[in-house]
Amino acid sequence: MSVYLHDIPLSQARERFRQALQEAGLWRVLGMEEIPLDENALGRVAAEPIWAEVSSPHYHAAAMDGFAVRAVSTNGALPSSPITLHVGAESQYVDTGDPLPEWADAVIPIENVESLDRDGQITSEIRAPKAIRIRAAAAPWSHVRPMGEDIVATQLVLPAGHVLRPPDLGAIAASGHQSVKTARKPKVAILPTGSELVPIGSKLKAGDILEYNSLVMAAQIRQMGGEPTRYPITKDNFDSICDRVREAAQTHDLILLNAGSSAGAEDFSAKVVQKLGNLLVHGVAVRPGHPVILGVIARSVLSGGALSALKSKDSDEAISPNNGQIASGENAPRNDVVPIIGVPGYPVSAALTVDIFAEPVIAKWLGRRPLELPVEEATLTRKLVSPAGDDDFVRVVLGRVGGKLLATPLARGAGVITSLAQADGLALVPSGTQGVEAGEKIQVRTYRSRSEIEKTILAIGSHDLTLDLMAQFLAESDRRLASANVGSQGGLIALKRGEAHFAGSHLLDPRDGTYNISSIRHYMPGIPVKVVALVGRDQGLIVKKGNPKGIKSLKDLTQPKVRIVNRQRGAGTRVLLDYHLDSMAIPKESILGYNQEEYTHLGVASAVASGRADCGLGIAAAAQALDLDFIPLFQERYDLVIPKRFAEDELLAPLFDLLADSRFREAVSTLNGYDVSVMGAIILED
Amino acid sequence: MSVYLHDIPLSQARERFRQALQEAGLWRVLGMEEIPLDENALGRVAAEPIWAEVSSPHYHAAAMDGFAVRAVSTNGALPSSPITLHVGAESQYVDTGDPLPEWADAVIPIENVESLDRDGQITSEIRAPKAIRIRAAAAPWSHVRPMGEDIVATQLVLPAGHVLRPPDLGAIAASGHQSVKTARKPKVAILPTGSELVPIGSKLKAGDILEYNSLVMAAQIRQMGGEPTRYPITKDNFDSICDRVREAAQTHDLILLNAGSSAGAEDFSAKVVQKLGNLLVHGVAVRPGHPVILGVIARSVLSGGALSALKSKDSDEAISPNNGQIASGENAPRNDVVPIIGVPGYPVSAALTVDIFAEPVIAKWLGRRPLELPVEEATLTRKLVSPAGDDDFVRVVLGRVGGKLLATPLARGAGVITSLAQADGLALVPSGTQGVEAGEKIQVRTYRSRSEIEKTILAIGSHDLTLDLMAQFLAESDRRLASANVGSQGGLIALKRGEAHFAGSHLLDPRDGTYNISSIRHYMPGIPVKVVALVGRDQGLIVKKGNPKGIKSLKDLTQPKVRIVNRQRGAGTRVLLDYHLDSMAIPKESILGYNQEEYTHLGVASAVASGRADCGLGIAAAAQALDLDFIPLFQERYDLVIPKRFAEDELLAPLFDLLADSRFREAVSTLNGYDVSVMGAIILED
Repeated sequence: MSVYLHDIPLSQARERFRQALQEAGLWRVLGMEEIPLDENALGRVAAEPIWAEVSSPHYHAAAMDGFAVRAVSTNGALPSSPITLHVGAESQYVDTGDPLPEWADAVIPIENVESLDRDGQITSEIRAPKAIRIRAAAAPWSHVRPMGEDIVATQLVLPAGHVLRPPDLGAIAASGHQSVKTARKPKVAILPTGSELVPIGSKLKAGDILEYNSLVMAAQIRQMGGEPTRYPITKDNFDSICDRVREAAQTHDLILLNAGSSAGAEDFSAKVVQKLGNLLVHGVAVRPGHPVILGVIARSVLSGGALSALKSKDSDEAISPNNGQIASGENAPRNDVVPIIGVPGYPVSAALTVDIFAEPVIAKWLGRRPLELPVEEATLTRKLVSPAGDDDFVRVVLGRVGGKLLATPLARGAGVITSLAQADGLALVPSGTQGVEAGEKIQVRTYRSRSEIEKTILAIGSHDLTLDLMAQFLAESDRRLASANVGSQGGLIALKRGEAHFAGSHLLDPRDGTYNISSIRHYMPGIPVKVVALVGRDQGLIVKKGNPKGIKSLKDLTQPKVRIVNRQRGAGTRVLLDYHLDSMAIPKESILGYNQEEYTHLGVASAVASGRADCGLGIAAAAQALDLDFIPLFQERYDLVIPKRFAEDELLAPLFDLLADSRFREAVSTLNGYDVSVMGAIILED
Repeated sequence: MSVYLHDIPLSQARERFRQALQEAGLWRVLGMEEIPLDENALGRVAAEPIWAEVSSPHYHAAAMDGFAVRAVSTNGALPSSPITLHVGAESQYVDTGDPLPEWADAVIPIENVESLDRDGQITSEIRAPKAIRIRAAAAPWSHVRPMGEDIVATQLVLPAGHVLRPPDLGAIAASGHQSVKTARKPKVAILPTGSELVPIGSKLKAGDILEYNSLVMAAQIRQMGGEPTRYPITKDNFDSICDRVREAAQTHDLILLNAGSSAGAEDFSAKVVQKLGNLLVHGVAVRPGHPVILGVIARSVLSGGALSALKSKDSDEAISPNNGQIASGENAPRNDVVPIIGVPGYPVSAALTVDIFAEPVIAKWLGRRPLELPVEEATLTRKLVSPAGDDDFVRVVLGRVGGKLLATPLARGAGVITSLAQADGLALVPSGTQGVEAGEKIQVRTYRSRSEIEKTILAIGSHDLTLDLMAQFLAESDRRLASANVGSQGGLIALKRGEAHFAGSHLLDPRDGTYNISSIRHYMPGIPVKVVALVGRDQGLIVKKGNPKGIKSLKDLTQPKVRIVNRQRGAGTRVLLDYHLDSMAIPKESILGYNQEEYTHLGVASAVASGRADCGLGIAAAAQALDLDFIPLFQERYDLVIPKRFAEDELLAPLFDLLADSRFREAVSTLNGYDVSVMGAIILED
């Protein structure tokens, strides 16, 4: 078996899959299901055009409370020359919605009528008088809802393929239906495979991988309008996987076979598809994604006809671009064939593969339009490099800064599910492009509404755990905090470029012991700012529980058996470390791991917890979070740097409220190593 | 009881309701429910911030299939000077996701390795060789997913108030949770009341009104994330309604009391709220809507405390603007109070009332952001007149014509549920405005995605039943046909103004017997067009079944006992009628009902079916649709008039395909009185 996959372009892969389904008679609405017209019909897709059975209203109805009259009998009525009509043959009280008497053709609203008693005197018996007096003529059909005003029997109420919304259910009911023919929900089997997988909730040991792809995929399928079945985990065993796929094929319309889609030692998916049917595609030039498998398999191997039809071409040929068709699929009974998608194992790849390849099929099977995300044009904040041959989907965070919609790329690892959860959208770098430069415009398919994006506060700079708390508190004020960790210096530079609303910074000026001000002047010359203290905090060495290497001060970092983990250049913590190393005359070259960089305090703590390093400079809260020990060494101030033009913006108002909010202050002070007494103090205001 | 309501402004009504809920301790998340982390969690709202319990990965994992090595042992490897590492203590095969051996800190992908046998020869045993040879140094931590790359234990995964989407479920699982704390779904009781109401599916007699508001409202509540209960219909009886409301209040968080909210004879809602609690608002200056009731009632009248607290102020005062607060609500146990909304009976009013007043409450109770529709700016095609005091929500159809997004107002009757089903959005004419002129820009809250709107073909002009069929066929090609019926002349004028993509027209030129061309030149001078024949069709008199008045020709229209219904001025059918009346020298004044106008063929047929008229000129299909008789008199041609600039547009391509589609042709020919032989013939091409 080959170690390499021959990726084909995305459009070709999609087309080959579509064509195979078409030839199998499966590129159509799968089936129809008549369901009662109740609120469960919400979101279902009309399988047939809905024509009106009855008119609505189905009679001439009073549109107001008042008196039904013959319009002609009111002709000539004037304020100065009223007309009196007897109640009975000449006029009749009607409530809104009541049918008009056969002889009537107009309604006079009750407030335009004088009610008279038998003596011709005005009476308070306004609804049952003996006569009425009117002082204006009524036009024919005034204040009447004529039969068919809303719906005329036989008219088209809704076309097939319409996704039912609340008022649609009303329109269907009003047109005389008590049930609705909807597209049957496609049944989708989700088969997680892998000996290393363990179910959600398992106690984890090294090498165990939590199986949550099936959960994400099931939720995706449900959102698309399909009916997912999550199968238990199957171990990496060719025969077990074959058995599971065969079993699932009996009762499902589509199979998602998760992982094992690559070409590794235990990647059986392609071989399984080859054995049970026809492998159409193995490898697609899409990122994340790549080792995608598309195929069709026989529903029942006992009825061998479909299988042999599917296999009449050598399925090895399937990976070359131009002959993925099913040879005689057109003659095979349509129900004998089940499409299968081999979904890559990395969670971001898995989710995108389902969006890219399963969604169009589900849409076709339901007869609705494919889902389309709204597209916004945004300015890219960082350069994106992308292999020219791939369609590259990049998760981005969106926010509007100073009138400009900005897209900031998130971590690109296909294993980083949080990057998908945090993403506001997907930017496509199409194949044929090597990448996109910072400052260029890109099209972003957005997951969030424009109004949510408009309420996003973009924070950049140094990382501090209080930002997570801040995010939670801001959410209560309808603000979303999206923060990127690029270190204090990086944050100031980003502010200068207009890429964020504020930066967290703790840059010590070694000359005078002040924080941030000299750096702000240096990196953001000419930009008026407001600087507000957030917290004072301890910096110190994060070490393993019990401090097994007996580290006490920076001097111990030069010990040959001590490996440190450092923060990246430009981080305030790095500046602090360098300052103290210099003042203690400790050469950086003497420190093992000095060049091993992490971007956050938790990254440093995690490196220590995992044994990648023995210690690192960081904040107490990070040590506490991962149950590590902490040796406090210095105190520093962490400020928020806010360009003046944003400081006065309504968007940031809740941020300033927060700094005065005792609940927030209390929440921060429960974290170890924080001094909240400075919170909200104005350090600088230009 | 007063016949008039004192409407208060919308913003004031909302604020009064919010304040009452706040004072009752109900302006907060209602409650929390811990649910298993499965696909049913989709769409639920996180009730608490979700913090990571574990890191992901929770160990250093191989990011590729390959060999784990110590990076330091690869230093100096070059293409010309390879390094050989023994498998065992120096290198070890790992699959993607496998944990790194404790001693390793890098992975070399398998494709960059030469596998060697015990003799140092290259072997095909690529995963279990005796040694590996490498020709490039590996950087430390290359091709490794370090512990915590995705999630570091203790970090914020998702804030409270987040509505869960598929990848969020993955992120929650990856961070070590197997359940999720979500906001409890608010329980909403929906109480339809009205003696005239009958359930969906009933056989209708005059005066019966199909009760489908509860269906629409239940679907709305479900869409908002609430749990609706639809109660059976309650007759208009004060005590029965009180009993039902009391019953519903025991087990629900919110009550929607439908209809009876006005001030008519059988409108009991306000009195019911007054009896059981506190009437805060009766009448809101919003259109459609007006007779909205907002109140709070006591959950249990047996525990009289809450009721007496609620009623400590004279609730009659509630309808004046400034004293709707609950006097001592702050001290009342929060669970003793249930908000109630008296929802108007007209279906459009009902749906909008639920959107305007219930949605913000449900959002608050769930802790999520209020739903906000995307807003687009559009150009209004027709003047809107609106009472200056009202916030007026106008349903519009949207479409892009020649680069301009156009909003065309739909029928404004609050009883026309189809106007809500067909609406693409809601335009707000705010209070303080008398209306909006045609051609002005308005903000439209859109129900449909921009891409759906971009795929809308706007048709205008004469009505023909084949347009409904066309809509259905076009939907299969991802086009939406929105048609407005303004008559043939009106259609040409609208085309001239750039308000639609094509017009249906059948305007006879009495001078030469041709259709449309002279009118096009007259109404659209200088605009190049393409004119394509759609159908030939019969025009004739639509009469009651059995033709009880024995009508045979236009001459019979002058009989004193014959009342006709006419089409509006500018309709091709009106032109045809006038032409033949003139040529037969029949004076229009001699025809009863000549000025009674309808806008569609079905409108004319409906007028005949209901007895509003004895006959009217129209097409056979309309007579057939309503089971009426038809007296064919003339034949005419019905064309599509398409400005040249749209005829070549990709948007309209499926329309031209349709004219050549035999399925469409067959579908049309099943309608009575159509000649499809002309379909697709080009009449004129500039």
